[in-house]
Formats: sequence, C-alpha cells, structure tokens
Amino acid sequence: MEDFDQFSVTEAVIAQMANTPDARLREIMESAVRHMHAFARDVNLTPSEWLMGIKFMTDVGKACTPFRQEFVLLSDVLGLSSLVNVLHDGTRMESGTDTSLLGPFYREGAPAMALGDSIARLTDGPRIMVFGQVRDAEGRGIPHASLQVWQTDEHGEYDLQKHDPKTMDDRGCFTCDGEGRFHFRSVRPLGYTIPMDGPVGALVTAQTRHGCRPAHIHFLISAEGYRELTTSVYLGDDQYIDTDTVFGVSKALIVHAEMGVPGSPDPSLPSIRYDFSLAKASATDSMSRVGSDPSKLVAA
Amino acid sequence: MEDFDQFSVTEAVIAQMANTPDARLREIMESAVRHMHAFARDVNLTPSEWLMGIKFMTDVGKACTPFRQEFVLLSDVLGLSSLVNVLHDGTRMESGTDTSLLGPFYREGAPAMALGDSIARLTDGPRIMVFGQVRDAEGRGIPHASLQVWQTDEHGEYDLQKHDPKTMDDRGCFTCDGEGRFHFRSVRPLGYTIPMDGPVGALVTAQTRHGCRPAHIHFLISAEGYRELTTSVYLGDDQYIDTDTVFGVSKALIVHAEMGVPGSPDPSLPSIRYDFSLAKASATDSMSRVGSDPSKLVAA
Repeated sequence: MEDFDQFSVTEAVIAQMANTPDARLREIMESAVRHMHAFARDVNLTPSEWLMGIKFMTDVGKACTPFRQEFVLLSDVLGLSSLVNVLHDGTRMESGTDTSLLGPFYREGAPAMALGDSIARLTDGPRIMVFGQVRDAEGRGIPHASLQVWQTDEHGEYDLQKHDPKTMDDRGCFTCDGEGRFHFRSVRPLGYTIPMDGPVGALVTAQTRHGCRPAHIHFLISAEGYRELTTSVYLGDDQYIDTDTVFGVSKALIVHAEMGVPGSPDPSLPSIRYDFSLAKASATDSMSRVGSDPSKLVAA
Repeated sequence: MEDFDQFSVTEAVIAQMANTPDARLREIMESAVRHMHAFARDVNLTPSEWLMGIKFMTDVGKACTPFRQEFVLLSDVLGLSSLVNVLHDGTRMESGTDTSLLGPFYREGAPAMALGDSIARLTDGPRIMVFGQVRDAEGRGIPHASLQVWQTDEHGEYDLQKHDPKTMDDRGCFTCDGEGRFHFRSVRPLGYTIPMDGPVGALVTAQTRHGCRPAHIHFLISAEGYRELTTSVYLGDDQYIDTDTVFGVSKALIVHAEMGVPGSPDPSLPSIRYDFSLAKASATDSMSRVGSDPSKLVAA
C-alpha cells in the first residue's frame, strides 16, 4: 500500500488497466487517463469545479435524444470533430477532397433522386443549381459514384427542425453518370446558430462566441474501391465564413453560388460547381467511417 | 481563412474561446481543449473510435438517475476523483486526515442520533463499535464537531440498493461531545463490486479489472472554522485493500475492527478507533466542498 501523490495516482490507474486484452483499448485509455489527469493537475481542479464538470457532462447526456446529439455538438464546438477529420485525412493513401463535419443532421434513408431533380421538395426560396464531378486522385471521373446531399433551407433550418421526424426534405441520394458527373437543384442554404438551448449552448454563450455556422451543403460520397468522403461546401459570401463555431471550413471547400458559371446545366440559376476527389480505399478504411446516423446513438 | 492542420485547429479553438469573460472558465477550457486534442493526436483517434467514444459518453449520461451517478463512477474508476482529492488536500493551510471519495451513496438528511446509538437499524449482522476523536492540527479535540456516517451492510449493500428510496439505514448524523469524541455502533461493513450493469461496468470488464472496493465506512466531518473533511476508513483485512478499483485507500486510512482495543466504550464488541484531524478553513474552502448529494445532479 503506497500513498498516492498527484503523480503516483495516475500510475496506479495505468497499472490497474495494464491487463486490458484489447491492445488498442489499452492504448486509448492509458492516453486518455494521462491527459485527463494532466489537465486536472495543470488547472489544480477543485472539488466544486469537478462537481460542476460532472453536472455538465450529465446534462449533456440528458440532452441527447434520437434527434439531437449533444455530445457530438460538444465535440464540434471544442474542435475535436474537426481534428479527428484532419487526422483521418492524414491517413489517406493518396490526396483527396478535405473531410468536413458530418454534423448531427445526417439521416440514413434519404430519398433516391434522378440527376437534375430538386432536393427542395417542400421548401420555397431562391433556387440554385449544384453540379460537378466525382474524380479519382488522377482527375478521372469515377463512374456511378453515390452521392448523398443534405442542407438547410433558405431560413437555416434542417427538415428535422421544422417537420415531423418522418418527413424528409432538402436531402437526397444521387448516382453519378458514367463519367462521375452529377447535378441537382436546391435552394440557397442559409447559415444558422447551433442549438443554444442546451448545456453546450450555455457553454458557448459563457464564452461569448456567436455560435454560428456559415451556410453549407453536406455531401457523403462513396464508390467501390475508394475511401468514403464526408464533407461540405461552404458559401464564401457568408459573414461567418472565417469564424465557423465548429471549425469545419477549409479554404478548398469554399464555393460561390453565382450566375455565369461555365458548364452549368441550368444557366438561368445561380450555380455552384464543385469537383470532389476520392482517395483509393486502404484495408483499414472500413473501420474508420467518419460518421453514422446520430439517431442510432440513442435508443428511441 | 487558414487551412487547419492537426496543430493549428487547436489554436483556432483556443482563439475562439479567448474572450471568455470568466478567467477561470477560460483557463479550464483552454487546458481541457489542449489536453483533449493532444490525446486525439497521440493515439491518432479514428472517426469510428471517436464515434464509439460519443456513444459511450451518451450511454453514461443515459445511465444517470437521481439514484445513480454514472459519470461520478466513471471519474472514480479512472482515478480522477482520487486525484482531485489529492489536489484538494494539497491546498490545505495545515495538515489533516486524507480526503477520500464521497462516492455515489451519500445522502443528505440522514437521521440525527445520540452518541452510542447504532446506525444499523434495519440490518442484522455482526456488531462493531466505532469510536475516536475529531481533532485540530495540534491534536486538540474540536468540541461538538458534526459527523455524518454511512456504510454498507454486512452483505456489501447500501440502503438505496435494497430499500425504498425513502428508507434510510446504516447511516446517521452525530454531534461529538465537548472534547470532540464520538462513538457509535454499527455492523461490520462488507466490500462490494461497483455497479457493473452499466457502461462503466462494461469498460471495467473490458479491462479485466475486478471492479471491487474494500470494506469501508464513510465520514463527512465538519466544524465551524475548519475545512470540511470527506473521507473513509478502510478495513485492513479486506482482500481488495491494495487494489481498490476507485483508488480511495491510503495507508493512513486503514483500520481494523478487533477485540481488545484500548478505550473502547463497549469492550464486548470488535472495535475500530480512529482519530480524525481537521485543517483550519481558508477563505476559499467554501468554494471547494468535496461533494454533494449526487441525487441533486439529475432532475428526478
């Protein structure tokens, strides 16, 4: 029996976890414990602050529902989600379009649509055309790549925020043509404030952050033999383009919806052209999908 | 607009939190973000592992009820609670008895009792006598110190685990005599396994840890002008005395319930003698109480 000081207690925890059979779980938990303890020592965390932390985490858990993932939101506003994406892109076999946040509004089972259809079926608002090509690292089109799209309406709301959960809008699934090309119609999305009525919103408010995301369109793109790509394109004229509260924007993902874009399938509409680039799949990619339907994380 | 790499994304988060008006919140969140990001980089956390983490935290939140605090349990098994206690003791103005875990079974409003009473009112099992003195750092008794006690029964169960939540047993509040002395009767507590049916239990199982705590008796001791002391005494003959799964034991807190203890108010019973030492209160102590009723952390 050794008495613990602020360092030896950490080693005692590591020792008690040392026989974890799963080597990766052992590695992750050892690092998590070392960093969590170093944090507590660095700030000399007091018992009352610890208790506030326990209460905060409990509140975040209680705010999670099948239609709201407050822990994903917490990870987003603390930049962890963005960092995990950067690390993920760093393990690619070859270059490709930057990964960006899946976010909490992805839903499986979005309606299949034909190229040219509008994903905005229940939404009025200014129409845009979105088109481009899904390519490999050498710039060749990937035939029949699958492309899921989702976005807010012109008021900054996702379908889940205004409709019955069974109703889907402003989202759809497309299959690219034989040269990897796609095009669809939509409304011009608006940026929005992250949900501010929960514990994460209270934290962001206490930090005097604006809590806003610039307007964007989400994409989840897959093709046999390539690493699945979760990303978004961001509208460059949004006032929050440089200060996204969840750190999702990178320069290469900034687009403009404007008239006169060469090659637009509908020159009468402001158009966005974006060509995506997929890296070849590696053996471990199936283990590292960037996201999944957040509703699966909480029992209904 | 700068593109993030795995280091610059951390700085972007810090920058966005830099205007937090509460300096302590700013300090804590900056350190938390730096350590959380360093953890993700160190283990090269994959998106699927991140998602497993989100699901785990969500499950921990969902397991919290007014009668079960799974985040406190998580903090306990990862040694964070014990570390916070060590840090807390390091801020004392003078030496005193080691702090130990409050645990999830403290309840406010335990019955007031007279010295000599038995806290085991609904519990059979082998009786013991517990006695001692509450002292200041110079060894002088502190008159009329207040002492709250709680423990398991002889089967290792707290009242909350076997009775209606309104029923209290194996707990009580005592006022020491004019020289700080106390004595009460009880049953010999048994150690127990932490709740293993939730997400924290699943983690502990995956780590092949035994999940056991050695037998102990909890104390929460207070007196005007002194820092409140949350601690426990641990029975030295327990098989888990050296491997407490929540790292609560320190050498100075080990006791034995045995016959022939000098000064026992009831020599017919195995007796534990323990003298507690309280440090003088400092101006900031009221801000740093070691615990509070866990049931207050979740709305009923």
